[in-house]
Formats: sequence, structure tokens, C-alpha cells
Amino acid sequence: MERPRHQGMAKNTYMRWRLPLVCLLWEVAMIVLFGVFVRFSPEADAHWEEEKQEMNLTSDIENDFYFRYPSFQDVHVMIFVGFGFLMMFLKRYGFGAVGFNFLLAAFGIQWALLMQGWFHSFKNGKILIGVENLINADFCVGSVCIAFGAILGKTSPIQLLVMTLFQVTLFAVNEYILLNLLHVKDAGGSMTIHTFGAYFGLTVTRILYRPNLEQSKDKQGSVYHSDLFAMIGTLYLWMYWPSFNSAISEHGDAQHRAAINTYCSLAACVLTTMAFSSMLQKKGKLDMVHIQNATLAGGVAVGTSAEMMLTPYGSLIVGFICGIVSTVGYVYLTPFLESRLHIQDTCGIHNLHAMPGLIGGIVGAITAAAATEDVYGKEGFIKAFDFTGVYQTRTPSAQGGFQAAGIVVSLLMAIAGGALVGAVLKLPIWGDPAAENCFEDDVYWE
Amino acid sequence: MERPRHQGMAKNTYMRWRLPLVCLLWEVAMIVLFGVFVRFSPEADAHWEEEKQEMNLTSDIENDFYFRYPSFQDVHVMIFVGFGFLMMFLKRYGFGAVGFNFLLAAFGIQWALLMQGWFHSFKNGKILIGVENLINADFCVGSVCIAFGAILGKTSPIQLLVMTLFQVTLFAVNEYILLNLLHVKDAGGSMTIHTFGAYFGLTVTRILYRPNLEQSKDKQGSVYHSDLFAMIGTLYLWMYWPSFNSAISEHGDAQHRAAINTYCSLAACVLTTMAFSSMLQKKGKLDMVHIQNATLAGGVAVGTSAEMMLTPYGSLIVGFICGIVSTVGYVYLTPFLESRLHIQDTCGIHNLHAMPGLIGGIVGAITAAAATEDVYGKEGFIKAFDFTGVYQTRTPSAQGGFQAAGIVVSLLMAIAGGALVGAVLKLPIWGDPAAENCFEDDVYWE
Amino acid sequence: MERPRHQGMAKNTYMRWRLPLVCLLWEVAMIVLFGVFVRFSPEADAHWEEEKQEMNLTSDIENDFYFRYPSFQDVHVMIFVGFGFLMMFLKRYGFGAVGFNFLLAAFGIQWALLMQGWFHSFKNGKILIGVENLINADFCVGSVCIAFGAILGKTSPIQLLVMTLFQVTLFAVNEYILLNLLHVKDAGGSMTIHTFGAYFGLTVTRILYRPNLEQSKDKQGSVYHSDLFAMIGTLYLWMYWPSFNSAISEHGDAQHRAAINTYCSLAACVLTTMAFSSMLQKKGKLDMVHIQNATLAGGVAVGTSAEMMLTPYGSLIVGFICGIVSTVGYVYLTPFLESRLHIQDTCGIHNLHAMPGLIGGIVGAITAAAATEDVYGKEGFIKAFDFTGVYQTRTPSAQGGFQAAGIVVSLLMAIAGGALVGAVLKLPIWGDPAAENCFEDDVYWE
Repeated sequence: MERPRHQGMAKNTYMRWRLPLVCLLWEVAMIVLFGVFVRFSPEADAHWEEEKQEMNLTSDIENDFYFRYPSFQDVHVMIFVGFGFLMMFLKRYGFGAVGFNFLLAAFGIQWALLMQGWFHSFKNGKILIGVENLINADFCVGSVCIAFGAILGKTSPIQLLVMTLFQVTLFAVNEYILLNLLHVKDAGGSMTIHTFGAYFGLTVTRILYRPNLEQSKDKQGSVYHSDLFAMIGTLYLWMYWPSFNSAISEHGDAQHRAAINTYCSLAACVLTTMAFSSMLQKKGKLDMVHIQNATLAGGVAVGTSAEMMLTPYGSLIVGFICGIVSTVGYVYLTPFLESRLHIQDTCGIHNLHAMPGLIGGIVGAITAAAATEDVYGKEGFIKAFDFTGVYQTRTPSAQGGFQAAGIVVSLLMAIAGGALVGAVLKLPIWGDPAAENCFEDDVYWE
Repeated sequence: MERPRHQGMAKNTYMRWRLPLVCLLWEVAMIVLFGVFVRFSPEADAHWEEEKQEMNLTSDIENDFYFRYPSFQDVHVMIFVGFGFLMMFLKRYGFGAVGFNFLLAAFGIQWALLMQGWFHSFKNGKILIGVENLINADFCVGSVCIAFGAILGKTSPIQLLVMTLFQVTLFAVNEYILLNLLHVKDAGGSMTIHTFGAYFGLTVTRILYRPNLEQSKDKQGSVYHSDLFAMIGTLYLWMYWPSFNSAISEHGDAQHRAAINTYCSLAACVLTTMAFSSMLQKKGKLDMVHIQNATLAGGVAVGTSAEMMLTPYGSLIVGFICGIVSTVGYVYLTPFLESRLHIQDTCGIHNLHAMPGLIGGIVGAITAAAATEDVYGKEGFIKAFDFTGVYQTRTPSAQGGFQAAGIVVSLLMAIAGGALVGAVLKLPIWGDPAAENCFEDDVYWE
Repeated sequence: MERPRHQGMAKNTYMRWRLPLVCLLWEVAMIVLFGVFVRFSPEADAHWEEEKQEMNLTSDIENDFYFRYPSFQDVHVMIFVGFGFLMMFLKRYGFGAVGFNFLLAAFGIQWALLMQGWFHSFKNGKILIGVENLINADFCVGSVCIAFGAILGKTSPIQLLVMTLFQVTLFAVNEYILLNLLHVKDAGGSMTIHTFGAYFGLTVTRILYRPNLEQSKDKQGSVYHSDLFAMIGTLYLWMYWPSFNSAISEHGDAQHRAAINTYCSLAACVLTTMAFSSMLQKKGKLDMVHIQNATLAGGVAVGTSAEMMLTPYGSLIVGFICGIVSTVGYVYLTPFLESRLHIQDTCGIHNLHAMPGLIGGIVGAITAAAATEDVYGKEGFIKAFDFTGVYQTRTPSAQGGFQAAGIVVSLLMAIAGGALVGAVLKLPIWGDPAAENCFEDDVYWE
């Protein structure tokens, strides 16, 4: 296997002291912060025997662990194998795709446990974590993996760790505004994960615009085997997406419903992706880029509404539309964004996460606004939207309005945050590769 | 990587308008039919809060979701990664294997939800779907994936979609005859999925016989890497088969037992496959084709009986036999079928699904006929075979007879249906490749 | 793809009669022994309907199946895909890695069901098996897969089967001594699986020392694609390790806690592995060998203590240390062991399993010794360490002492057993390859 030599590298990509320093410093910080703040939630603590009686539970199976652990493991696979392998399509960047994804996700989940913990699981000075926190940490990191897709192959591992630190922080703030202040529903994260993550990443890559990227154009494509590896990522994302969208829904019918809606949406999305992939190509052949990516848009786009009474046919319609939008995006929009707006989006996250995420937010707002006691049942209606306490009098149409506001907030946070972080990453101290060495494992891997 | 040029292609494989048209038309049909018919089952509906009280359930964990969702996800992986990657062994047909499998399965599950829904989940004019329906839809599509194995590399994606439409329809009819009219047990689908799917596919490939297929003989083999990709498929099928056979069994002991029996049968099957693979080869070396396929026969062959009191040693015996039968089939029967009966079976589904499926049906009939109240317990006996209502007086030996009848019905339906569908697929309008372009991704993939 | 020809092979690697004979004989023995001894546990038996009433259970969901089956499937994936693919890093030994792992594991789980069954599930002359037995059988085989890592590429399949027979036997004895005689806790198997398995394998490979192994040095490395395949193994082991360590813990909080601790430890381990991988390399580049292996050490090292109140920050500290220890081991210790101690450790199991396993045993002993009723709660304290019956008066510090004794026993059993088995495998009748044909699929694969 021939590996190109890098004579005359303009940039210093030597990682020997910088990368270890950042990794070790941050991990030590995690240990200190975990030591001060993080403890087990009651359901994971050895005092559970006594808690059970207080909580009036008759059986160990009532532990949240059994409601959510199988979904957690599926989500875990999506983050590490799903995203990691999906990004392996580049012919010479397999190590970077899976390895850097591994690195940033492993760091990100720790920082997310803290950030989300302070906002949502903070009691008497301690963050109490259980299986739901693990899922939420994975979710948060998912939005970083999405942003990584835009800058894949063009950044150093240190830049990725810096971005992860900032993005997780902003994610947690945005999530807090949406879920707690606006009282918005977003179990599958169309807004908090996909819209936020994608526009964040697109803004970062815009700021880091590389005018000479065509110097590594030959490496920006795929080869036969790299496409097959990428399909592993695609399929695990596709198959486990029902778990993703249902993982943190309310116990019982909501989890059940979210899985069904997602299953339906994804199935429809495959058909329209295939149709448009063939239709938009002169020779009528299918393009692996579309199959690898656009087939997933249906999962993104029911992220907000999957746990609502979207109904199976509603899900099919959403999937139908998103397969088209996403495939058309790959064919027409990505080249336009690159040539006109200088947005170099390696994986096309604009088509897979940004647009479907926006659609998902809108579908969620509409579905919420259209909710009635008749469709949900009296108790189901209150449970579905958590219309209790101060929210007791909120109407469905008001909820729809707040949902829409959530989209706007996520967009603004993403773009402002992305601009800030992009500026930080532009500093010439992080060891990013020269333009001619992008998309090349040789730079950072032995 | 060199790709052969297709000069002088005799056939028109241009998909640009035909494939999009079929995909879009059928997806629109799905949306309309789902809109008219499909709703959530009570356990996935927001009215569940009220249903729970009516059903006298004390906890959300009693929702069927928690009994079956982990198994569902395993089955889902088997259909999309298991079958998709198993068929990746061909050196130049990786995209087609995993991509077309993805396409037909995504369409098939939608149509299966409708067809099976009309037969089994139809109430007051609506099909009510829950997690069990999702599993059954995946099962149904599994039989199409099996049939796909016989014609792999020789058909156009449109032909696959047409076949899926017909096969799912016939599958549902056959399943209805077996489960409802004959009151047969077949939780893991030895008869309904494997026997039916395999003989259906074998009949189709017989009708589509290509006398000049040796023109693409050089592409019909594997290379080192394609064999490794195929092993991913093999292992996921092998590991998750206990979930497959237990996924729709009765709650409690039946699911538990089905998983154990399948685990045992599969373990034994690996040993005899290895033994015969080495024994039947002059140089005594192992053949990856056998390891990839025959090791799975043990799972097929306990499909009917796994939820019965087959016992672990009974399962070992079944697995022992099937490893031998299947490996011997690959060595001697497949060449015979091709040269004498003109059955060109790309993946050797006759050895992996047809024969083990038949064995599974027979083992199920015998196990049912041998059932006694002593072995099952009084209540367990009734529960295991659902000897209630009009079936209250059915004896084990009668049940054995009906089970045997189920095999025959499945065989007849498969062969008649396969002949019909084969004839339809022979029409020269579907864009199948010329003989010299078979087993070649270049024809349909960019 | 060029395959070297083996002219002048010094050794007879002809498997045609030997391998089938061993496979068939042993499988027949399994069938006979299963027939005599193995039956379903009450929760998997059709009498469960009646058992439920006796056990005073109100719902089918109380069946142990639902507490453990999802974890079982994750563990199953770790054994067959995790270990199988992790060992695929060698450029020409992919078939052997995944295929022989498949063979020995499929045989091993059967023998483990019997051996462990006689020790732990024997009632009225029968071994009663349920889902927990399946997990334990997988665990036991895991220790064989670990040992396989040390001799990978240098042994015949028959040798592997012989080793599996002996190692499973010794594993069960060692496990019995630890769990029943010493009353030690080791849910994730730092001692029973990792320490035992690794030192067993290291002793075997020492006995089988090949002075001329440098003749196949060119094949002992990886290529780009084989490293990517290996990452599949790595990630599945990494992602599912929380299931591994929690799979057989007590229902409820213990399982919940074990998963969280493992998740934390593994996350920290990735950061320090990356740091030291870069730091210990002149050019500061990352080494895939470290990423593939040392990132997993954190899971090994919380195997004993994960179900205890190790706390999330305690887990981070353990992971932090093990990433360093393991990576340093790969860089400095493995070459030293090979050149000075003649221990040829193909996969570096000393760094991934042996040292982290020892650390895990020590961490477990300390955590147990430090336990207080205050931290665990009165009932939780008794439940966590099973201080009932004759162990009612055992103090935490005594428990710590017994835990430490468990490490020593495991080490002694491993080294003595490995020496014995190594001597057996040195007999010239098993068909192992000549030094120049090591790490080469061509020898045993068609």
C-alpha cells in the first residue's frame, strides 16, 4: 500500500507534547470534578434496598435500569460504531474517522455527565447519575459527532477535543433553555442534537474555510472497501434509530410509540432515497453516498415527534419527504454551499442532520399544536406534554409555538457558538494539517 | 481497483425512470394504505394510561415493549446486517448485496405490516400495530432475504421489489393458513420463513435459469476481504439467532427456553460443520463458504421446536445433524442442482435454509407429537400449544400431524408462488443484467 | 492477492482426519453428557406456570430472562465478534482469528455449561440451566479467547480445542474455589476471567516458545484494512463492557451500578491511552495497536469492583491508570518479555488482560475492605457481599483479605495449569505450523 511522503509540510502537526498534555490535563480535571460532584442515583446506589420500600416498589424490575438499558446500549453503538464507521468512507482516513470519533466521544461523555448533571440531576450539591444520564451524555456527544462530520479530515485531534469541550457546554445550555425554560418536548433531539449539532459544525467549518482544499481532492473520495465499511455505520444508525428516539421517552406507551414511528419513517426514507439517487444521476445508477446518508434522514426528522401521536402514516410521510430533501441536498446543495458560501462539509451533514433536523423541529411543533384530548386521552394528554404544575394551563397551540421557538433558539445558539469556537480553532497552535495533507491518516497515525 | 468495461451489453439495465417510478409509486401506496388502516396498538397508544387500568396492570414494565423490544432489535440487526453482509462474499457485489437487501427489506416491512395486519391485528377496520408486529414484519422480510440469496447478482433492483411485493403477500397467506387454520406452532419460522422462503427462491431462480452464466464465473467467487465482511453477517446471524427464535414466543418460560435451545443447537452445529468442511476436502483445509453458512443451519432447524420442551441435548442433536447435512449439501448437492436441475443458487440457500427448514418442521412435528402433560405440567401443556377454545381437545399426536401438514402446505405454496413470480420476473421489462455482467456492482452502482 | 507457496514445509499440518475426529468425538461426548445431566432451570421449564405461584411471582416479567437476556446478548457479541475481530489485525490471519475463535468458543460454551453446572447448578442429579448459565459459559470461554490471543497464529485448530477442554475445566475449578470456598466477589471476572485467562495463555506460549519465529516476522504485522476490521472488535468490546461487568450482578442497583462504573472507567482509559500512545512515540503519532487494545484495559480493571460502591470518580481513576499501564506495557514490556523471557505474546494479552486483571483484583480487594454500612446501607451492605449464613460475621477487611487470596489462587492455577497444558500441546501430534508458516491462513484454510 503506497503512502505519500509529506515533504515540505507547511504546518507543524507534531502532536507529541500537545496531545498528551491536553488529554491528561482534561482527564485529571474530570477526576477532580467527578470526585467533588458525581455520585450514584438512588436506583444505582446500594441504599436502593431501602429506597425501594420508600418508593413503594415491589420488584427489582421496576428499576429504571430495566426500562432503559437495552436502548442505552443501542445508542452507545450508534455513537461509537455508527458515527465512527459512517465517516470511514474516505479512502485514506479510516483511522482518523473511527479513532478521533472514539477520542472525542470518550472525553465528551464525561464532560456531558457533568454539564447535564448540573442542570438536570443536581441535588444537595451532588450530581446523581443513573442510566438515563448515560443516555443523555451519549446524546450530547452525538451532536459533537455530527459537527465532526463537517470538519472530518481537516482538523487535528487537539482541535477536536477543544471543540468537544465548548460544544458540550453550549449543548447543555441550549438543552436547558429548551427543555426547562421553554418546556419543549424533544426526546429524539431533532432540535437539541441534530439542528444544533449540524449548524454548529457548519459554522465551524465555514470559519475554518480552506481555500486550497482542492490540493487534497484526490483523497476526498471513497474506494470500494471504504464504502463497505461505511455501510456498517449506516446500518447500525438506521437499525438502532428507534432506540435512539425512544430511549428517554416516558416509560410505557411513549417509548413503544416512539420506536414504531421511527421504524416507519426510516423505512419510507429508504425508498425515496433510492428513487432520487437513481433519478438525479444521468446513467440512472445508485450512488453509495446517498444510500449511506440520506436513508437516515427519516430518523432525524421524527426525533421530536416520535413519542407523540404522529401515527405510522404520518411517520411514513415524514420519511418520504426527508429521503427526497436529503438526496437532493447531496446532489445540488452541497456543491453550492462549498463553491458559493465556502462551507466545506466533508460528510454532507447539512443534508443528513441540518435540514432533516429543522424539518423534525417543525413536524414536532405541528404535531404538538394539533394534539387533542380526544387523540391522547385525558391522562395521556397531560402525560405526553407534561402539562402539570405551572404548565397546567398551556394549550397545544401554545406548545406548538414554544416548540417553534425552540428551533430558533437552537439555530441561534449553534451559529453563535460555532462562530466563537471556529475562531478559537483558527488559532495557529492546535496542529491542524496543511491543505495538501487533509483526509490523510499518515499525518497523525503511525 | 480495475473495473471491467461493459462494451456490447445486450440488455438494457438503465434504471433512471423505472426504479424511481416503482419506488415512489409503492411508497405512495403505502402511505395511503397506512393512512386508511394502520393505527397504534393499545400498548403504544397514548390512551395506555387508561388501558392499563382496564387491563389491570400495576406497572409500565408490563407493556409488551419491555418483553420483546431487545429481541426485536436483535432480529432487526439480523435482517439488515446479518443477511446484508452474509451476501457480501462475492468479490464485486458488495454494494448490491447490502444495498439491495436494504431496499427490499425496507419496502417489505411496510407491506408486511399491512398484509400480516389484515390477517392478525385487524380490529374495527383498523390494523393495530405494536412491537410484535414489527418483529413479524422483519420475520416476513427475512423470507424474502433468503430468496434473494438464490438470485443474488442476477437480478435488477426492480425485479427484487416486484418479488418482494408478491412474496410478502404469499408469505402472509401461508402464515395465516398455518397459524390460524391448521393451528400450528412455528415461533422461529422453520416452516413459514425458511422452508417457504428457500423453496420460493429456488423455484424463482430455476425459472430465471441463465444458460450462459459461466460467462461471469470469474466474478462468482470471493476474495480475502469479501470473506471477512461476510463473516460479520454470519456472526450476527449466529449470535442473535436465540433472539430470533424466542422473539414472539409466549412471555416467560417459553421465550427463555427458546433462547437456550437455539444457543445449544447452534453451538453443536459449528463443530460438525468444521469437521465435515475439513473431511470433505482433499487437503483437509477448512472452507470459508461452509463456515459462513452451514454453522447457521442449527438455528434454522430448531425454529419450530425451540419454544417446546426440546431439551438442551435434543437441541445438540439437531445442530449436530444439520451441520453435517448443510456442509455435505454445499459440497455435493449445490453443483448437482446447478448442472442437472438448472437451479443456480448463488448463496446455497438450499443448504442453509431449505433442508434445515424441512428438518426443523419435522423436528417440530415430532416434538409436538411427543408432548405429554408430565413433561410440560398441566397448565404448561395447554399454554405451550394453546390447546384452548376449539382446540381444547386436540391431542399431541394430532398436533404433530397438523405440524407435518404445515410443512407440506409451505412447500406447495412456495413452489407454486415461486413459479408464478418467476414467470412475472422473466418479462423483459425489468432491466436485469446480461449474463456476462452478473455479480458486478458496476451495472447498477455509480 | 498473492499467496505464498509453502514449499518445504517441515511440519505435517494435514488436518483431514485429525480435526474431524476431534470435533465429532467431542460433540458426541457433549450430547451424551447433556442427555444424562442437563435440563431446563425452573424459569425456562414449561412447569414455570406452576413454579410462578410457588415462587409467589405476579408477572412473567419477573422471570430472570428479562433481567439478564439483553446483557447476555451483548456478552455473546463480545465473545464472538469482539474477540474474533480484535484478533483480525494480522494481515494474513483473518480467517484463523475469527474462524478458530468461533470454533473454540462454540465448543467451549458447551463444556463450560457442564463444568460450571456441576459446580453451581446441580440439583437432584441434574444440571438446571437458564440464562445466567449461558452468560457464565460465555464468560468462561472468554478466558480461553484471551489465552488464544497469546498463541494466535502459531497453533493448529486441534491444539486450540485441546487447550479449550483443559482450560475450561481448570477455569471452573478455580472459579469454584474463589466464589464458593473463599466467598469472593468477582462479577466482571478480573480474577477468574482475565488474570486466570491471561497468565494461563502466557504460560502456554512460553512453553511453546518458537526460537525461529522471526522467519514469519513479515506476516506478524497489520495492514490498513486489517486494522479497520480489528477496530470493529475493539469497539464492540468497549461498548458492551458495561454489560459484561453487570451481566451476573444482583438484580436492581448492583447491575445498574456496575454498568455506570464500567462506562466511566472505559471513558477515562481512552484519554490516557491516546496520551501515552502519542507521548511514547518519537514522531508523536498515534499507534493503532494501543487504540485497539489499551483502551479496553479500564473495563478489565473494574471487573471485580464495578458492582461495589466504587463510585464514578473511583472508576475514572482506575481507567486513568490502566490506560497508562497498558500502553506502556505495549511499548516496553512486550518486547522485553519476548527477548528476555521468551514469551511470544501475539496480541499483547499481558498488557490488556494480565496486568489490568491484577489491578482489578487489587482494586476489588481494597474496595471490599473499605466498605462500610454507612456507604452501603444496612441491607445493601449484606446484599452486596452476601454476608449471610456462615459468612454473617465476616468483616470488610476480612473480605478484602479473601479477595487478595483469590488473586493469588488464580495466578497459581493459571501458571500451573498453563504449564501442564503447554506440555500437552508440545506433543508433535497436533499439526501445528512450521515457524515460517505462522500467522498465515493458507495453512489451514482453503
